[in-house]
Amino acid sequence: MLRTHHCNELNLQHLNQKVTLAAWVKTLRDKGKIIFVDIRDKFGITQLRAEEGKSPPEVIETMRKLGREFVVQVTGTVIERASKNPDLPTGEIEIEVEHIQILNPSKVPPFLIEDETDGGEDLRMRYRYLDLRRNTIRKNLELRHRIAQATRHYLDSQGFIEVETPMLIKSTPEGARDFLVPSRMNLGEFYALPQSPQTFKQLLMVSGFDRYFQIVKCFRDEDLRADRQPEFTQIDCEMSFVTQEDVLQMFEGLIRYLFQQIKGLELPAFPRMRYDDAMRLYGSDKPDTRFGMPFVELNELVKGKGFQVFDSAELVVGICAKGCAEYTRKQLDELTEFVKRPQIGAKGLVYVKCNADGTFKSSVDKFYTETDLQQWATKMQAEKGDLLLILSGETNKVRKQLCELRLEMGNRLGLRDKNQYSCLWIIDFPLLEYNEEDKRFYAMHHPFTSPKPEDLPLLDNESEYANIKANAYDMVINGVEVGGGSIRIYQRPLQEKMLSILGFSPEEAKAQFGFLMEAFEFGAPPHGGIAFGFDRLCSLFGGADTIRDFIAFPKNNAGRDVMINSPAPISQAQLDELGIRLVNKKA
Amino acid sequence: MLRTHHCNELNLQHLNQKVTLAAWVKTLRDKGKIIFVDIRDKFGITQLRAEEGKSPPEVIETMRKLGREFVVQVTGTVIERASKNPDLPTGEIEIEVEHIQILNPSKVPPFLIEDETDGGEDLRMRYRYLDLRRNTIRKNLELRHRIAQATRHYLDSQGFIEVETPMLIKSTPEGARDFLVPSRMNLGEFYALPQSPQTFKQLLMVSGFDRYFQIVKCFRDEDLRADRQPEFTQIDCEMSFVTQEDVLQMFEGLIRYLFQQIKGLELPAFPRMRYDDAMRLYGSDKPDTRFGMPFVELNELVKGKGFQVFDSAELVVGICAKGCAEYTRKQLDELTEFVKRPQIGAKGLVYVKCNADGTFKSSVDKFYTETDLQQWATKMQAEKGDLLLILSGETNKVRKQLCELRLEMGNRLGLRDKNQYSCLWIIDFPLLEYNEEDKRFYAMHHPFTSPKPEDLPLLDNESEYANIKANAYDMVINGVEVGGGSIRIYQRPLQEKMLSILGFSPEEAKAQFGFLMEAFEFGAPPHGGIAFGFDRLCSLFGGADTIRDFIAFPKNNAGRDVMINSPAPISQAQLDELGIRLVNKKA
Repeated sequence: MLRTHHCNELNLQHLNQKVTLAAWVKTLRDKGKIIFVDIRDKFGITQLRAEEGKSPPEVIETMRKLGREFVVQVTGTVIERASKNPDLPTGEIEIEVEHIQILNPSKVPPFLIEDETDGGEDLRMRYRYLDLRRNTIRKNLELRHRIAQATRHYLDSQGFIEVETPMLIKSTPEGARDFLVPSRMNLGEFYALPQSPQTFKQLLMVSGFDRYFQIVKCFRDEDLRADRQPEFTQIDCEMSFVTQEDVLQMFEGLIRYLFQQIKGLELPAFPRMRYDDAMRLYGSDKPDTRFGMPFVELNELVKGKGFQVFDSAELVVGICAKGCAEYTRKQLDELTEFVKRPQIGAKGLVYVKCNADGTFKSSVDKFYTETDLQQWATKMQAEKGDLLLILSGETNKVRKQLCELRLEMGNRLGLRDKNQYSCLWIIDFPLLEYNEEDKRFYAMHHPFTSPKPEDLPLLDNESEYANIKANAYDMVINGVEVGGGSIRIYQRPLQEKMLSILGFSPEEAKAQFGFLMEAFEFGAPPHGGIAFGFDRLCSLFGGADTIRDFIAFPKNNAGRDVMINSPAPISQAQLDELGIRLVNKKA
Repeated sequence: MLRTHHCNELNLQHLNQKVTLAAWVKTLRDKGKIIFVDIRDKFGITQLRAEEGKSPPEVIETMRKLGREFVVQVTGTVIERASKNPDLPTGEIEIEVEHIQILNPSKVPPFLIEDETDGGEDLRMRYRYLDLRRNTIRKNLELRHRIAQATRHYLDSQGFIEVETPMLIKSTPEGARDFLVPSRMNLGEFYALPQSPQTFKQLLMVSGFDRYFQIVKCFRDEDLRADRQPEFTQIDCEMSFVTQEDVLQMFEGLIRYLFQQIKGLELPAFPRMRYDDAMRLYGSDKPDTRFGMPFVELNELVKGKGFQVFDSAELVVGICAKGCAEYTRKQLDELTEFVKRPQIGAKGLVYVKCNADGTFKSSVDKFYTETDLQQWATKMQAEKGDLLLILSGETNKVRKQLCELRLEMGNRLGLRDKNQYSCLWIIDFPLLEYNEEDKRFYAMHHPFTSPKPEDLPLLDNESEYANIKANAYDMVINGVEVGGGSIRIYQRPLQEKMLSILGFSPEEAKAQFGFLMEAFEFGAPPHGGIAFGFDRLCSLFGGADTIRDFIAFPKNNAGRDVMINSPAPISQAQLDELGIRLVNKKA
């Protein structure tokens, strides 16, 4: 090793020891006669010292040549500092330098390598290797490492075995768009990169592996939103001979274990919420339950009083914002603007102030009496000083709008503390979802999810499709869906029926999923599983909103790695070998 | 859970307990009045029993309907067996069935799901999910799981952090052929799948991560030999501020830890062998050192006696096969045929029998006296009863040929026991390798490998290129290269010079590796690492010759997954989206 110690290790116990450190120059202070240099490695910071007339002249000379981020190897003696720094583990000592060698010089970095950097997103991505040198980013990846190890430890201890499934698989039309890989050995044919190892993990259950897991890269060629990556990582798991309850217990156990190991938090048991209730109470299948403020439906109280907006609405629904009755005109206008933004799309916002003196003041005083408003307040469990915020319209739309307003109020009231965690299961999802554009049903989860056994008869009646519930579940933490899964179909006839409902012809079903359905005929056990979004889980543990800083080398929104400049053109020889030609983009 | 116990758990301690099992039907024995069924899960086998007149009639009826590989759920009482089976953990008990349900029937499997199957390779791959149900194959993957967990445990304990590097990167012309991925968002441009995370792990060292590892999929689009896969797995590692010695110690430690944890073996320290010595003594840079039989060069003893073949040879070299002097004409002919096979390509084989009576008998008695042969025998440390086998020709060729013959003799003499392990390091590799076809030098390891510091001046003199040694090392176990690595170049000027020697123009170097060389200018620390072939390592631990049975879903030699039938054609819409067109293969 080019060093005897890390930069966090030395203290008064090492006094007078001869040590060698190798690290990066963090700061230089040339006081004329005395030169101080702080050097930094991932472990910590140590102060070097040299003094004219005392230190060897070549040491002085070299130390004066140093710049930020130079890599140096230093040998010297541990001495006690004159002015100690109680904030550093090494703050009581410094190194009296006897020998110093520049292992590698450094140009001036394009941005500050500090927790608070002056580098913008673009610059940081271009020089990601310098960005990763910052403590904040490196600690994110160290956290990711610890979560990965703890996840494997838990699953291994529960009898799961880690199996690597293939990366070069086959394109399937259902679901998101695949990344494709032309095959040179089979010209004209393509592999696809997996969107998930779904069918393979099911086959492992058919193989009797009993419990499988993998922390695995998955790929989706989608237009990227702010916080999506074309390649992302899943904790992918599957178990045989289980009911939904077994899966929920096992993976609630995993997440509780992770919180305990990584954050030292003992979480209470995760509540379960039915999908229908989540939509009704929070307008979302991933409610942020760090705070209450549930929806209260007001149809029966508000209709027939001459207020056309409410009278014509399918749903009138509100939330009670505690202690906000004193909101100013300006604040209320902000909220109205908020819900009227195109992304949210509400037409307006009705408010009722429950004044401290017991009176009410609303934006619809023309239509409703104090008694009316009192009734609303009572139903919404409002107290004096609270503010009622009410939206109306088509049920699904108004729920989504109020969901956004509720989260906004949560933010304004400081109810969404990143260091507080509220976990729950959403259960009893619909099996199928109707798409108005395509005029067909899609699998809400995926085509391998099983219906609730009691709903099986509804599969024979198209008018009942929307009412079929699935053995599917999502884990939600702080309003983020961190994982989801289901009990799977494991019998060929049911899988065939499901694919037929999803619009597959028997030939298409066979071409795409024939191998899976054939496998179901050779003794497939009942099985189910779950997959967690690992990038998202890490960012949640790190208390961050974005996954990008929990991925070592992320891509930008155009799917580019701006550091290595990828993707990039390839040679004609490579195209020829693959038997493909570029279509003229300009044509 | 659909079961209370696994199929290996029940014994006399559970007598009279009511239990539920869920598993696969292994064997059925209908004795008329009594029916026995063995059921199997990954954990073990349990015997079920039902008796006419005693068991419920529907149980008898269902049990008579069962077939091999049916999945059943059974509830019953643990009773003592009449005739015990001492070979089974559950051999003293059986289950008196009270309730049985067929969870899924099974067609008759296309081959026997037993350790010794009647299924050929093609059939097994077509129905890989049934092949994986066989104990032998599943145990291989369980072994792989354990090796992976132990590897991570060791590296984590040594301060390595696991970082995921990207899968969608950029194509590089140096090295093997890349798999390419057309980019839809950047039409006309392509990602490449990584052949290794080499540049990324080096960038992580520049970032100050200090110690990195990853168990990671890598990809090479090569024509597949019997035991290569287009996607394969590496244990990929890198360390900062290290010398070669540090890397060797660390990863010798890893492999010794794995042998200890997985196989209960305490290995001795790994010997180190210089590349030149390995070539001279074993004709290979991955010698199988489970047995001796080193090469002995005979030039100075054999030349000038009128035997034209030896006189004209650049090298005459032999091995001594202990106790083989009694080999028959037929056996010697077999060996001659062996070395004359086109894959080996020797012109002939000279033998000398060192007879028990002290005389010699050789195939070149015409040219050499007993005294000559005695000298050979002495030099080759032969004893009475040994057989000398001698080849001659151009040095590099004859060494390769004799290497094959040595391994063949090792096989014939039973010296290559799969349960015995001989590990060593090969060090001091050449930096560059001349390619006669291209008339240029290639990096023997890769372009990022550093020369030995003392050989740096030779980089300025093309005639010395072949003599430059690298800070590179391979770990060899039982004649298999399981891992290799190097201390890297970490300074821009040296990396530029290296790329220039490899034929990169400054523009090409910048386009391909500009990001890495730029990173070297911002304080890159000295660093080095290693990568192990994980599939190969697992097969070695499993005592197998092929990696295919240590990969859950391998591809065949045409790069096809015959189970899912991949690669496959894609739709015109998919091609259009990617801006590519297929070139007519027939054209």
